[in-house]
Amino acid sequence: MSALPADPARMSARAARDAIRAGRLGAAELAEACRARAEARADIRAWTVLDPQPPLPGTAEGALAGLPVGVKDIIATSGMATEYGSPIHAGHVPAADAACVAALRMAGGAVMGKTKTTEFAAYTPTDTRNPHDPAHTPGGSSSGSAAAVADFHVPLAIGTQTAGSVIRPAAFCGVVGYKPSFGTIDTAGTMPFSASLDTLGVFARDVTDAALFAGALAGWEAPGAVTPAPPERVRIVRAPAWDLAEPEMIAAVEAAAARFADAGVPVEEAALPDDFEALVELQDRIQVFEGRRALAWERMTHPELLSPGLRGHFERIAGLPFAEYRAARAAQRDWQTRIAAMISPGEVWLTASAPGAAPRGLEATGDPVFCRAWTLLHMPCVGLPAGTGASGLPLGVQIIAAQGADADGLAAAAWLEERLG
Amino acid sequence: MSALPADPARMSARAARDAIRAGRLGAAELAEACRARAEARADIRAWTVLDPQPPLPGTAEGALAGLPVGVKDIIATSGMATEYGSPIHAGHVPAADAACVAALRMAGGAVMGKTKTTEFAAYTPTDTRNPHDPAHTPGGSSSGSAAAVADFHVPLAIGTQTAGSVIRPAAFCGVVGYKPSFGTIDTAGTMPFSASLDTLGVFARDVTDAALFAGALAGWEAPGAVTPAPPERVRIVRAPAWDLAEPEMIAAVEAAAARFADAGVPVEEAALPDDFEALVELQDRIQVFEGRRALAWERMTHPELLSPGLRGHFERIAGLPFAEYRAARAAQRDWQTRIAAMISPGEVWLTASAPGAAPRGLEATGDPVFCRAWTLLHMPCVGLPAGTGASGLPLGVQIIAAQGADADGLAAAAWLEERLG
Repeated sequence: MSALPADPARMSARAARDAIRAGRLGAAELAEACRARAEARADIRAWTVLDPQPPLPGTAEGALAGLPVGVKDIIATSGMATEYGSPIHAGHVPAADAACVAALRMAGGAVMGKTKTTEFAAYTPTDTRNPHDPAHTPGGSSSGSAAAVADFHVPLAIGTQTAGSVIRPAAFCGVVGYKPSFGTIDTAGTMPFSASLDTLGVFARDVTDAALFAGALAGWEAPGAVTPAPPERVRIVRAPAWDLAEPEMIAAVEAAAARFADAGVPVEEAALPDDFEALVELQDRIQVFEGRRALAWERMTHPELLSPGLRGHFERIAGLPFAEYRAARAAQRDWQTRIAAMISPGEVWLTASAPGAAPRGLEATGDPVFCRAWTLLHMPCVGLPAGTGASGLPLGVQIIAAQGADADGLAAAAWLEERLG
Repeated sequence: MSALPADPARMSARAARDAIRAGRLGAAELAEACRARAEARADIRAWTVLDPQPPLPGTAEGALAGLPVGVKDIIATSGMATEYGSPIHAGHVPAADAACVAALRMAGGAVMGKTKTTEFAAYTPTDTRNPHDPAHTPGGSSSGSAAAVADFHVPLAIGTQTAGSVIRPAAFCGVVGYKPSFGTIDTAGTMPFSASLDTLGVFARDVTDAALFAGALAGWEAPGAVTPAPPERVRIVRAPAWDLAEPEMIAAVEAAAARFADAGVPVEEAALPDDFEALVELQDRIQVFEGRRALAWERMTHPELLSPGLRGHFERIAGLPFAEYRAARAAQRDWQTRIAAMISPGEVWLTASAPGAAPRGLEATGDPVFCRAWTLLHMPCVGLPAGTGASGLPLGVQIIAAQGADADGLAAAAWLEERLG
């Protein structure tokens, strides 16, 4: 029997679960260690609600048995306030859990509390700080989930990505973020912003934990069954908007590519068409048009309680003809077909998770530009830490696989993680 | 100034709106006429809540100015019970409107009440009766919406379709049903069942009213601007499962085709691939797998309050490997691409809305088999009345257009309606 680490809050999800199953650690003991850590680090401002729930009876053999989990505050939790990062919904307490929350409970996981989100998981920041340097943003929109996992408040947390809201904060906080293929985890009970883009994802401190968690939420039979393996081929993507990549970020991507090349994996530059650059604007157009429609009730009843930033985005899209929205959706589908034909089975793509490390300041969450295209394309992305920049803050790279080929992306990311870690 | 009909409840949406705008009819007067009709016909059991709301101030120039609307009870209405056709959610009163409800209020429409739905808009019927013969089903799942429009309780009502829940009840009740291209009307605030299939749609008593209403919900600039026009080509679809079509239904489809042919429109039989038959099972597989996940909280907390029928569907899908669900979604996308290549601009397809007229009995809502493929393919469908069967109940045919080519389908349906009417 291996010794437990001094602080259960620092255990991996798998190690903690296995210790709980073996009777070496109590679920309540783990939850208390996590709560103590979160309370000691309250200045990170990761949580809107911190109120550890017990696991459901009869779930001790579940994939997440005894694990405390953070839930982004746009996701409904029965009997626990769910406010979407907006004063419009202050005090809202859902009667029912979101589908993914019920799934985690049925797998033996336990809700630790609600993590802070930007307003409606969109643009306007919350006050969460980066655990590596509180003067820097943790990224967003899943700000609290990324910070809570990075800072050892919980081993696992749920986030969502519509532009870059899982992969970017994971990179800025130095943890693993996994945005599965669109639709992998059901969105029922999650506050919608953009029906064509909103994707549930997860944060963990390693790739296998992320796969374990996402699998339990999605309903895989063997969640977490990731065997680290090199891909058949790696293509380095320097698009779109690659001129925004900072030199230290480019170096981190190239260093990751070198790990693959050193092991004999063919590494090439991706030859994407010139008009691939247009995907940034295409993603933005769909996101803002759909977000404006989804928040119709909030616009109608409480326009003054929407942030000026969000109102500004809605105002700039309000004149978009409906036919242009339809055309944007058709272009999204066409691009999905076109890119699917460019990526072969077993192949993964490698790019930066963000232009650089977390920017200084809490008034913005950083640029999602290197995530927008992949969210639009519904392709799975696994972000993982790849060293630190000159500021001492983490840098992140992401592995991208073909739509539905999540297993390829997870295996390659787990393999790379062993070599970057 | 034209005279009003004796009963404002029998006016078309356009006529009523124009009369209200011109000061010839009061919105309250119209709502009262509708309420009186609904109360006189309470034995149809179309409503869970009948409680006419006033239009919002300042919306008298809106596209729906003064029109009372029925809202299917899986769609959130602020301050009005929304129970999803399930005892699990009895007494649930949302704080916020669904996006489509806010949209209709901003367009000047007014919620008349909530219309009955099958359990979670799925299989298990509610007790709504067919207004043409109360011993027959109105179809489902949008049972109350179809019956309420057919029976002159409201000029317009919202429904949803995951298999055949707009087009089938529209046909059985003898009204127009319009299921737009997937995603045309935002689903925020609508209880999800199957994220890849759930499509908001509308009921009206003519095609132009349906387009007016759907356009206002979706955010078209000129909702209802339908010019009846013959299509460039019509293909008759006798698939999948065409052996289920009753002779009188086949005759109605062929009679509709003859109207096009008589006007010189090229009419052909569609040459669909043999494996098109597989779309029925593919749609079912996705619907049940996703529905089981979306209702995770209900399964976890109140399994005994799910109907035995719904539990049976969930039990038969529970063993489906996740990889097979992913494969089904990939097949759905492949079929969308494949069929899109088979329908040219300006062309529409013509088929039956259901195997025949509404079956006798309220213990089932009829077979959605002639709708499943089109919902799966995300193609717009306009169902319209096409005579009556031997039972004296309505028959319905549907016009199908390419994904996103809703205007083609509406124009052709409006043209056909003039000739069938």
